[in-house]
Amino acid sequence: MSRLILHEDRFFDPDPSRRIMAREIFEFVENLPIVAPHGHVDPKMIAENTPFPNPTELLIIPDHYIFRMLYSQGYSMESLGVPTVDGSKVETDPRKIWNIFASNYYLFDGTPSGVWMNYELAKVFEIQEKPNSENADLIYDQISEKIKDPGFLPQNLFEKFNIELLTTTDAATDDLKYHKSLKDSKWEGRMIPCFRPDAVTDLSVSGWKNNLKLLEERVGFEIGDYKTFIAALENRREFFINMGATATDHGVFSPYTHELTEAEADAIFQRALNGKTTAEDASLFTANILMEMARMSTEDGLVMQIHAGSFRNHNQKVFEKFGLDKGCDIPYQVDFTFNLRELLNKYGNNNDLTIILFTLDETTYSRELAPLVGHYPALKVGPAWWFHDSIQGMTRYREMITETAGFYNTVGFNDDTRAFLSIPARHDLARRIDSNFLAGLVASHIISLEEAKKIAFNLAYGLVIKNYKL
Amino acid sequence: MSRLILHEDRFFDPDPSRRIMAREIFEFVENLPIVAPHGHVDPKMIAENTPFPNPTELLIIPDHYIFRMLYSQGYSMESLGVPTVDGSKVETDPRKIWNIFASNYYLFDGTPSGVWMNYELAKVFEIQEKPNSENADLIYDQISEKIKDPGFLPQNLFEKFNIELLTTTDAATDDLKYHKSLKDSKWEGRMIPCFRPDAVTDLSVSGWKNNLKLLEERVGFEIGDYKTFIAALENRREFFINMGATATDHGVFSPYTHELTEAEADAIFQRALNGKTTAEDASLFTANILMEMARMSTEDGLVMQIHAGSFRNHNQKVFEKFGLDKGCDIPYQVDFTFNLRELLNKYGNNNDLTIILFTLDETTYSRELAPLVGHYPALKVGPAWWFHDSIQGMTRYREMITETAGFYNTVGFNDDTRAFLSIPARHDLARRIDSNFLAGLVASHIISLEEAKKIAFNLAYGLVIKNYKL
Amino acid sequence: MSRLILHEDRFFDPDPSRRIMAREIFEFVENLPIVAPHGHVDPKMIAENTPFPNPTELLIIPDHYIFRMLYSQGYSMESLGVPTVDGSKVETDPRKIWNIFASNYYLFDGTPSGVWMNYELAKVFEIQEKPNSENADLIYDQISEKIKDPGFLPQNLFEKFNIELLTTTDAATDDLKYHKSLKDSKWEGRMIPCFRPDAVTDLSVSGWKNNLKLLEERVGFEIGDYKTFIAALENRREFFINMGATATDHGVFSPYTHELTEAEADAIFQRALNGKTTAEDASLFTANILMEMARMSTEDGLVMQIHAGSFRNHNQKVFEKFGLDKGCDIPYQVDFTFNLRELLNKYGNNNDLTIILFTLDETTYSRELAPLVGHYPALKVGPAWWFHDSIQGMTRYREMITETAGFYNTVGFNDDTRAFLSIPARHDLARRIDSNFLAGLVASHIISLEEAKKIAFNLAYGLVIKNYKL
Repeated sequence: MSRLILHEDRFFDPDPSRRIMAREIFEFVENLPIVAPHGHVDPKMIAENTPFPNPTELLIIPDHYIFRMLYSQGYSMESLGVPTVDGSKVETDPRKIWNIFASNYYLFDGTPSGVWMNYELAKVFEIQEKPNSENADLIYDQISEKIKDPGFLPQNLFEKFNIELLTTTDAATDDLKYHKSLKDSKWEGRMIPCFRPDAVTDLSVSGWKNNLKLLEERVGFEIGDYKTFIAALENRREFFINMGATATDHGVFSPYTHELTEAEADAIFQRALNGKTTAEDASLFTANILMEMARMSTEDGLVMQIHAGSFRNHNQKVFEKFGLDKGCDIPYQVDFTFNLRELLNKYGNNNDLTIILFTLDETTYSRELAPLVGHYPALKVGPAWWFHDSIQGMTRYREMITETAGFYNTVGFNDDTRAFLSIPARHDLARRIDSNFLAGLVASHIISLEEAKKIAFNLAYGLVIKNYKL
Repeated sequence: MSRLILHEDRFFDPDPSRRIMAREIFEFVENLPIVAPHGHVDPKMIAENTPFPNPTELLIIPDHYIFRMLYSQGYSMESLGVPTVDGSKVETDPRKIWNIFASNYYLFDGTPSGVWMNYELAKVFEIQEKPNSENADLIYDQISEKIKDPGFLPQNLFEKFNIELLTTTDAATDDLKYHKSLKDSKWEGRMIPCFRPDAVTDLSVSGWKNNLKLLEERVGFEIGDYKTFIAALENRREFFINMGATATDHGVFSPYTHELTEAEADAIFQRALNGKTTAEDASLFTANILMEMARMSTEDGLVMQIHAGSFRNHNQKVFEKFGLDKGCDIPYQVDFTFNLRELLNKYGNNNDLTIILFTLDETTYSRELAPLVGHYPALKVGPAWWFHDSIQGMTRYREMITETAGFYNTVGFNDDTRAFLSIPARHDLARRIDSNFLAGLVASHIISLEEAKKIAFNLAYGLVIKNYKL
Repeated sequence: MSRLILHEDRFFDPDPSRRIMAREIFEFVENLPIVAPHGHVDPKMIAENTPFPNPTELLIIPDHYIFRMLYSQGYSMESLGVPTVDGSKVETDPRKIWNIFASNYYLFDGTPSGVWMNYELAKVFEIQEKPNSENADLIYDQISEKIKDPGFLPQNLFEKFNIELLTTTDAATDDLKYHKSLKDSKWEGRMIPCFRPDAVTDLSVSGWKNNLKLLEERVGFEIGDYKTFIAALENRREFFINMGATATDHGVFSPYTHELTEAEADAIFQRALNGKTTAEDASLFTANILMEMARMSTEDGLVMQIHAGSFRNHNQKVFEKFGLDKGCDIPYQVDFTFNLRELLNKYGNNNDLTIILFTLDETTYSRELAPLVGHYPALKVGPAWWFHDSIQGMTRYREMITETAGFYNTVGFNDDTRAFLSIPARHDLARRIDSNFLAGLVASHIISLEEAKKIAFNLAYGLVIKNYKL
């Protein structure tokens, strides 16, 4: 048995002179409200506000950080209750799945998933032991009991977590009905959508034709050529803005940008309509769409986020059986210097435009991203993303970005999570790591404690508000 | 003069709260037996068990880590006694060579070679001063004296070093006679071979035809086509398994994997038989062989190791005059995400298969390897390899691998050495670095001391036994 | 208001046992003379020795590290007084520009620019507060006052800064008149040129034809073919050597090296003369020129520096309006292993030749550069360059280079600056970081304090003198 204790100095460097600074800086930002400008929480969950069904469906099945680790150690997706695309049978006993998780909890030692889960169990559910094969049932029961309490309804947790704003990520064709119902309700929380048009702008996604059809329905006109397609995107952006959106998001294989003539773009679009898209078509079309999106952003003011460099669904078998976002997306090396040049030469000097870049290739931090955002006024660098949203990952990010780009060309933290319960855990970790990093600068007499506190406030709050135009 | 002292806290972080933890964790694993599942010690040396000739032939001439540094500083290979391919004359006075080494010992300050050599001199030979131009002869004499002692015979050192198992690396065509003679002897040490077929599977190596001829002799049948070639490899794997092997090893330029049809593979094989191999042929053939090797491993259970990304014999002149493994292999950037996909899509979901990946491109740790091994059940990541088998290198490895892959998708330590005397030094260093890394997690309240000890045991012993199927 | 204090332990690790070592090592090298073997100070400034005009023209307008950060935060180049190519109007009130700088001084928190500027203000100008919008005018006045003092004339500062040698970087066509006038004067400082022929060897630079014309004038003969072109370069190298040069410098897009036949090279040269250079021509010509330069260096003894991997003038608009070196050069990934092989196979084993490599792609440190310089006798690795000439950057450099290459295959520090006032600040920082790194090795019992001091001396002084043949 292992006690589950959240030490008040957790994640701080053990050197006393640095730790004391970290503590002081962290205390200054610890209780700031959470602003979550980019994430993947299901808006339905917040809007419907029904009790969570059970610990397994709350904590394990929706969290690919959790089940990817268990899968890597030989537990089948079926045994973990991950639903199949065709509805074929998987494990349905939540307690059985919970037992696998609990008896393998040690696998998460030293990982951010372990750190976040410790926080969720200890802080949200007041569990006092780390899960293992022996206490699995007991902990399951304790959590089951808790989530029956009205205080654990999503909207109540939202308030308890001190969330000032939560942004979801939504398809261009989404009707945003949950956002609407929340807007129309008396609930005072703020949840806004983000415009992510990949499913209609990436010609290579399966089901593109259906996605386009749905887009036609949403805009109420036929989309028979590139020009109309662009008009439809503009139309949807306007709708999102009316629903509170302040940003777009673009998940691209490569950040290659290149402007096509309307004739070139339309020729590709026509091939797509005829089901004849080539790989090169899709790549060029995305390169051109990024140019269009930047252009629209200069007009309608939406902040533009680019997430590049993830090989989605690398494991074909898992993808076919279980679908998207099942822990088998793998990063690869990416170039920003050459790929972004055309975009930057056209829009990069625009002071009113904000483009936020995300990378999974950490080599680009000091080599490309920091030099780029430390020059182009339109450009900012997003926080450490996904696999790098971790203690060492966030530390490397600050170490490799700050010296060239400073703190003020960054945009604060994104939790980027599907796991609603992990939001406070993730912000707690990020604020601690930033505090610890700043404490290192203070302890080495690079900046003063007062300066560090001002920066910490900006990283936790000020720069998020500013750069996401909230 | 500089005292040669192995401080009991060496390589630990100086912060007292971390150091005290590092010490406690290290004490827990310090005396575990050495399991060396991958290395290049000459089995002849162990089997024949004759005294080492002199300090120079023991410590310098076989160790390319040592002479590459001296060469970089202007000492010719000849002056260091490195034997030539054509037998032309090189320095034969071991004392003269020793003097160059001793008077340049400071060049190794801050390098793992220096750290290992300090250990070997202090711990194995009880030398009390660091070598320099003045004490060179004295130290030479002291070592010379020691190695006459029967306690310094290879088999006795093997026991003294507390080696539980030593794996060699052997050509597919090796008759393994030294392994056989050891098996047949009364000696109780355990030395096993590892199947490394590169000399027959890489069509671009010089002397491939001769290697194939030797393979024909070993298997006792003619190898006139691809099908027979595959049968010959299966035959040899079986022989290696009977001789105790549990693993194969593949040194490849790129980890590109791709399955050819038998007809395609045979066409390339026929061109090779006719001396018409192209660069593309060799590349495709290796890509296909990796698929075959994975297939065989699912059948015969051998663990598959892939070492990718070394430009062998980069210095043509040194290669021509002195042959392979002379310190002029240089790493370059490598992709695993795209290259391994075909292999992983066919075999990566197999729980019974173990494929261990090694890289010299540290950028792939957090970007590709940790995400891959943190998902695919068949995949594990090998320890920090070669140039990165060092204090900072192993630390970076843990920092960049652990947060995504955890500890349990790694496989413990490889010493990977040709220098028999360096084995305990290398394991001592690795255990210290892992203890220090874990101590950092404890001191920052990420894991508990008990958890750290359990992990340390697994890194030093448990995961080696498990993942190499020993 | 924020006090401006240079803490005596600045940049040292806060752990007391490490800090005490860092202090002791630093004290040993702190007052060594500055040897600056590579930089971009304008020789005219030293030779003419007139007072600096005002704080803004001294500290802001010539320093692209400063104005790139301000530009990234939305201040136009015009508002910062950066002169335009066509002479069109920019801000001319130095005090107004100074106010922008002062009120944004916090942007440099945690950056090397901030660290250097703190040093310059505190140490050189005895300013006691960090600039901000309130004290901007006061500090401006204080500096204005100081620079009227004869002690602040360039030559007097040169001596006050304890500069033993300052190397400039000069075009092949430069007449070196300022170097000459200094040589002929009674001034005892040592300033030498460095031969950087890019403007005539890179066929893709705009104005190449004019540059060639100027080269013809300098050498006094017509350059109608490749052979004569090579003769002209040899002629200019000789001139530079007579003027004191010990090194050449080559800024190349890629470090690709390849020897052309004279006929091939001449064909490209003829196309260039006719204004028909292709991108491939320019690339091949540079690859061949690097071979020629290495050949010449084996003959005339000049040390060869290669700076590879900067995408110059990435921002086309800024380049067109403001010209070269305006903070919009962006790094990208680079390969040395393959690209340098031809050069190294021909010249790399030459003990008398010194080639110093610089990179902006930190991934090449441990993967390529350390293995290369730890083998080839002709090769050395230059210090952390440009964006990486920083606290974390220099630390990463030592961590990733040392274990494979040792300290003695490095060449000490380059300040590489256009900002004369920043020279002592930069050397101070570099010596502190090296001292702190060495202190880490001492505190972890990897080397002794005596060894650390010897190495520190070499990094600050000995290796610079040796490797730049000074």
